[in-house]
Amino acid sequence: MKKVAIGVDIGGTNTAIGVVDPEGNVMVKTNIPTPSHGDIDKYISDLSVAINEQIKSVKLLNDEIQVLGIGIGAPNGNYYSGTIEYAPNLSFQGVVHLVKLLRNNFPEMEALALTNDANAAAIGEMIYGGAKGMKNFVMMTLGTGVGSGIVVNGELVYGSDGFAGEIGHTILVAGGRPCGCSALGHLEAYCSAPGMKRTAFELLAHYNDNDSLLADKSYKELDSKMIYDAAVKGDKIALEVFEKTGAWLGEGLANTIHYLSPEAIFLFGGPTAAGDYIFKPTKENMEKHLLPIFKDKVPILKSQLKAGDAAIVGASALVWKELDK
Amino acid sequence: MKKVAIGVDIGGTNTAIGVVDPEGNVMVKTNIPTPSHGDIDKYISDLSVAINEQIKSVKLLNDEIQVLGIGIGAPNGNYYSGTIEYAPNLSFQGVVHLVKLLRNNFPEMEALALTNDANAAAIGEMIYGGAKGMKNFVMMTLGTGVGSGIVVNGELVYGSDGFAGEIGHTILVAGGRPCGCSALGHLEAYCSAPGMKRTAFELLAHYNDNDSLLADKSYKELDSKMIYDAAVKGDKIALEVFEKTGAWLGEGLANTIHYLSPEAIFLFGGPTAAGDYIFKPTKENMEKHLLPIFKDKVPILKSQLKAGDAAIVGASALVWKELDK
Repeated sequence: MKKVAIGVDIGGTNTAIGVVDPEGNVMVKTNIPTPSHGDIDKYISDLSVAINEQIKSVKLLNDEIQVLGIGIGAPNGNYYSGTIEYAPNLSFQGVVHLVKLLRNNFPEMEALALTNDANAAAIGEMIYGGAKGMKNFVMMTLGTGVGSGIVVNGELVYGSDGFAGEIGHTILVAGGRPCGCSALGHLEAYCSAPGMKRTAFELLAHYNDNDSLLADKSYKELDSKMIYDAAVKGDKIALEVFEKTGAWLGEGLANTIHYLSPEAIFLFGGPTAAGDYIFKPTKENMEKHLLPIFKDKVPILKSQLKAGDAAIVGASALVWKELDK
Repeated sequence: MKKVAIGVDIGGTNTAIGVVDPEGNVMVKTNIPTPSHGDIDKYISDLSVAINEQIKSVKLLNDEIQVLGIGIGAPNGNYYSGTIEYAPNLSFQGVVHLVKLLRNNFPEMEALALTNDANAAAIGEMIYGGAKGMKNFVMMTLGTGVGSGIVVNGELVYGSDGFAGEIGHTILVAGGRPCGCSALGHLEAYCSAPGMKRTAFELLAHYNDNDSLLADKSYKELDSKMIYDAAVKGDKIALEVFEKTGAWLGEGLANTIHYLSPEAIFLFGGPTAAGDYIFKPTKENMEKHLLPIFKDKVPILKSQLKAGDAAIVGASALVWKELDK
């Protein structure tokens, strides 16, 4: 009897569904559109059909397989209530009781739980990845935004209302750049992939540099991968983007250590593919801002979750975490 | 049989020792000097004598009393190891194994534990004060410095090494005022009692104001109580000190909520005696910097620990917390 968990990642445009084994390998997976129609009952029905198809196809591989539960990662997902609340990028209005609605269709599952995507990634790192055995760590997900999941004493920190761990929305530069949430100077406005693009354009303007490899890209075109490629070729603007992003992120991580004194901080997401270009200045600047008692203690590690499957794998980890209680 | 706990507060010049009942009332207390001689064995011996005298005198009041344990609050106190590590304001060198040394003299105690003063205050608030029954809250102690104690899922957050909860040393103003720790722009440099004095002098200089009630005080003379008295009389500089301090503190508390989503934040210490002068601008500015999901959820409350005895009471609370495990 092989026990497995289902991971569901609800994104703005697609919902990914996969069956994950206890080692964190995705056995089968599929995608359905995350609807723009806003009809939650229709979506629950479509999602349930897709989940049942995944269960069927994995049982064709091995009829001894037992599916223990469903873990879901979603923007503004609330673990305590099993709801998605006022998610700006989803078409569902207000508070959606996702776990309750899905439970009607899967009464036999031992675990059915929901959290936000960054928390799911943190649990994934703890169950399958580099944080195995760690009791205190922080996961930072760098992408379109900056998410975070905090683990203290072996448990995800949800706070009083389920929404703790919004490090991306702490203030890094008082009165600085507008964040996607409209407040000023948040870490996300500097350390996300779009944040790096903003830095690149600021630097092009500052140095009036027409020779940079980035100087022939429109604002719409430029992405963090292009900045990395230019840095590898020695482009000064691109190299300075990484230096500055690392300085900002290092400051944010130093603050994080002063709050939580974690054993390690994990970085996940597109910008981490740049390796030392981003890790080195981040580490240097983090160390510079630490109290002596924290210096040289906290490694910054690359997430061991595989990029393509991480969201499904992270969500599925919720199932093992639930059953471990 | 009445059960009681001993609280020991190790300060830079004095060590306060008291016996505390389960309601948080100090039954007897005394002081011994915290030595400048750096001889830890001599200090342990003096401290043990003083503790035994307190036990004797409380048993004279009621010979049915049973002393369950000793809780200690100390700068750089490490709960995990029971050590005081490199405390800048104490004469003991390096790492001092306080709990181990004291345990030799009190083998019969059911609990003997140590933490830093702000953590002790947080546990005191949870055991005896306004945080009774709360599972997620933050305690900020405003005084010569700014300390903090974080409670998540009903447990003090010590982090991987025992030193978590240094919110006073998170960066509030990048490149700003030097902090006591020598780094720039920390919350402590703005929101401590000396931080308020620094703000007052900056404002006097900025407005070139010779008519302020604060204009006839030397830098050495001025303290936060004088700023409060001047504010009550309508002094513009003093009022602006509170506005600015509240703006900075509110920003720091907003960051704290984005990390931890606590049920409440407690403020303790001298500056909180100013009541609305400090609470109102802090609350207003905190709310301004919160994501919509956190708005109007988190009250800022005054600590219910009595100012004079808070350090002893907080330290003694460690005993109940230990026995509760």
